[in-house]
Amino acid sequence: MTWSSERGDNGSEIAGIIERLDRLAGYTDEPGRITRLPLTPAHRDAILATLGWMEEAGMIAGVDAAANVVGRYEGRVPGAPALVLGSHLDTVRDGGRFDGALGVVLAVATVERLHRRGLRLPFAIEVVGFGDEEGVRFGTGLLGSRFTAGLTRPGDLERRDQDGITVGAALDGFALHDLPGGGAARLSPAPLAYVEVHIEQGPVLERLGAPLGCVTAISGQTRLAVRLDGAAGHAGTVPMAGRRDALAGAAECVLAVERICAGDNVVGTVGSIRVEPDAGNVIPGAARVSLDVRAAENAYREAAVAEIEAAFIETTARRGLGLTITKLSDVAATPCAPWLVEALARAAETAMGGPAPLLPSGAGHDGIAMSAIAPVGMLFVRCRAGLSHHPDEFAETSDIAAALAALEAFVLTFDPSAARSGTTPRRAASPQSSF
Amino acid sequence: MTWSSERGDNGSEIAGIIERLDRLAGYTDEPGRITRLPLTPAHRDAILATLGWMEEAGMIAGVDAAANVVGRYEGRVPGAPALVLGSHLDTVRDGGRFDGALGVVLAVATVERLHRRGLRLPFAIEVVGFGDEEGVRFGTGLLGSRFTAGLTRPGDLERRDQDGITVGAALDGFALHDLPGGGAARLSPAPLAYVEVHIEQGPVLERLGAPLGCVTAISGQTRLAVRLDGAAGHAGTVPMAGRRDALAGAAECVLAVERICAGDNVVGTVGSIRVEPDAGNVIPGAARVSLDVRAAENAYREAAVAEIEAAFIETTARRGLGLTITKLSDVAATPCAPWLVEALARAAETAMGGPAPLLPSGAGHDGIAMSAIAPVGMLFVRCRAGLSHHPDEFAETSDIAAALAALEAFVLTFDPSAARSGTTPRRAASPQSSF
Repeated sequence: MTWSSERGDNGSEIAGIIERLDRLAGYTDEPGRITRLPLTPAHRDAILATLGWMEEAGMIAGVDAAANVVGRYEGRVPGAPALVLGSHLDTVRDGGRFDGALGVVLAVATVERLHRRGLRLPFAIEVVGFGDEEGVRFGTGLLGSRFTAGLTRPGDLERRDQDGITVGAALDGFALHDLPGGGAARLSPAPLAYVEVHIEQGPVLERLGAPLGCVTAISGQTRLAVRLDGAAGHAGTVPMAGRRDALAGAAECVLAVERICAGDNVVGTVGSIRVEPDAGNVIPGAARVSLDVRAAENAYREAAVAEIEAAFIETTARRGLGLTITKLSDVAATPCAPWLVEALARAAETAMGGPAPLLPSGAGHDGIAMSAIAPVGMLFVRCRAGLSHHPDEFAETSDIAAALAALEAFVLTFDPSAARSGTTPRRAASPQSSF
Repeated sequence: MTWSSERGDNGSEIAGIIERLDRLAGYTDEPGRITRLPLTPAHRDAILATLGWMEEAGMIAGVDAAANVVGRYEGRVPGAPALVLGSHLDTVRDGGRFDGALGVVLAVATVERLHRRGLRLPFAIEVVGFGDEEGVRFGTGLLGSRFTAGLTRPGDLERRDQDGITVGAALDGFALHDLPGGGAARLSPAPLAYVEVHIEQGPVLERLGAPLGCVTAISGQTRLAVRLDGAAGHAGTVPMAGRRDALAGAAECVLAVERICAGDNVVGTVGSIRVEPDAGNVIPGAARVSLDVRAAENAYREAAVAEIEAAFIETTARRGLGLTITKLSDVAATPCAPWLVEALARAAETAMGGPAPLLPSGAGHDGIAMSAIAPVGMLFVRCRAGLSHHPDEFAETSDIAAALAALEAFVLTFDPSAARSGTTPRRAASPQSSF
């Protein structure tokens, strides 16, 4: 455990990390807000800064054909298999300074610690800053990690942003050939593992009073669009007894979701509701609601969705309403490799001075795609009020320091032989946008 | 009962009434739709046509200062008090051909029957076609009947349409001085009664299989705007247990309205719901719902509103949600004069060959304003599927014939002395728009 001896330098080192987060936050497509969409000038600035930091940390760095930044810190033996650390460089519109950026900056800082000590490990470390995780610009997420994992789908290059620019045209305009690596860099094949540090984006660690947590799985997600059809009518002239009020039916459905998803195994949300004609003096003739169900284990999610659908059918049949359920997406859970969860938990415990909570990730991450080519592990950092995708997104400096300590401890104790004996990477079910 | 002897002429007479409804439907501000807003060229055309029909029916006709058409059919003694019949000439946007127009055309047709026979009654009959009942153009309803009843409010003339034109400017531009009566016509003071024929705008008569019904009261109406404030959050990362989901709270409130208003005495409707941010992957942080409660008796309405408010308070307190209730309007019920209800019921029974159902009017009507200066009665005509304010609005020709027969029977048996011994007209609580 040599790493703890370096804590003396910690203050200025962490200040440097915060400075880098601030610098990335300044690279924005919208002045006054943090909006860093893929393949924009702000993204290019973020790439160039990250490449510079990677080189300072002793890495060979460049961009790949999907505008991901990749850097390699060689191990004791050149060409050794690599442990991949990283996260993404893009943000949502008017987002925060930690989501994505923190994982990239901490990965580079971890390598920098090794580099400062001239330490080479029995494996290489590669750091990646994916160009598109959020999916905001082109309406589909994980473009960067899907490219890396060989999960690019037909049509990905033809997807258009709101100005009609395709992914392909945006890549052409981005002139990768003018950047270090010239678009020909690439993570080495068959990574030993992919490990990402990310803010939790939820309130669990804050409630538990824990700076860090270890992710057990990235939840699977089922998204449905539900439409209920009733009969519009005059709010004053149609007696209650004869009504087929689509909103009253939808209200029952909303409460059914809440009831069925109560407990710790699954979360279910109706985030959107619209009624027609949406006038105070007209009985709603139609209602459209969204449904989002997530769970760390597929069986829980599937059982909840089935029970919810049954409740919707019963409610609408009893009320004489039409029901149309459209499945928008169904993404299986991505379990983290148990040996990585264990190793990250040990490392986090060292850094925190107490056991690290285990929790699922309800939000999607690049690990969904990376699980197709590597065992995946994630370390969560507590964030204030569970807030993310928002300018007020915040992680305490001391929690960031704990995350850096944990990540370094993890790297220093990482056993590449465990990767070979661990769980075989699983090919992910087709990942979707809107995480 | 001399009226029934004239049934031989009925076919062509009813065809003429349908033709007049068609002709009014052709006077529209929007070609291809029926949209006749007050003080527009379409309104002017409707006024001129109605004035012509009134004169054909032996009436002295003109427009008053609010662009209402008024016509007088003198009684046996010149200057006798008048029974007022009528309805309104305006429509909603993309409305139907019966709402309002039917009541004006049938009132004129009833007088025409008297005129053809040279019959003078012990009282005068005045027919009115109000210029603004719906309130679509200027955002406040009953402008025409409120002027007539002396209920014009300060600021009425300054109300603006969506182009910024005030009522006052629209009246100036309408050049009343160029129309018959020159804006100086007026209903005679102290009407014996105000009686209106109108399509039901609801499904009750259709369900009962009755062509006509007698209105017992125009329901009072309470309108509330309700806001629930919770906490937005990520649909995947916030455990169910810690949520303050504004939509789940609103769903309980919607079902409470339905439960509390079950029964025959009151109707309650949540016609509009909006959530923020209204995204499938975000727990709703706020929800806004409308509430519309109506009842023929004020006590029922007031009790239901109180019970609903108590349920909203209980629900939001239990769920840790903020609650803001804003009262938009509170209009007392307008009871029809019992002696008029009775007389109209007798007349309708004669016309229908069976008892006429008694029912409240859940929609608002000019009678709300007219009740300030006269006892009010209303006859409802069955309409298809309860539909109104819609191009498919429809009343059967045979039902229209029954309504004409009933109205004539009512007029011929009308006893002006009953008006004096009946209930004193009640000054209406300030009427509101959005009926």
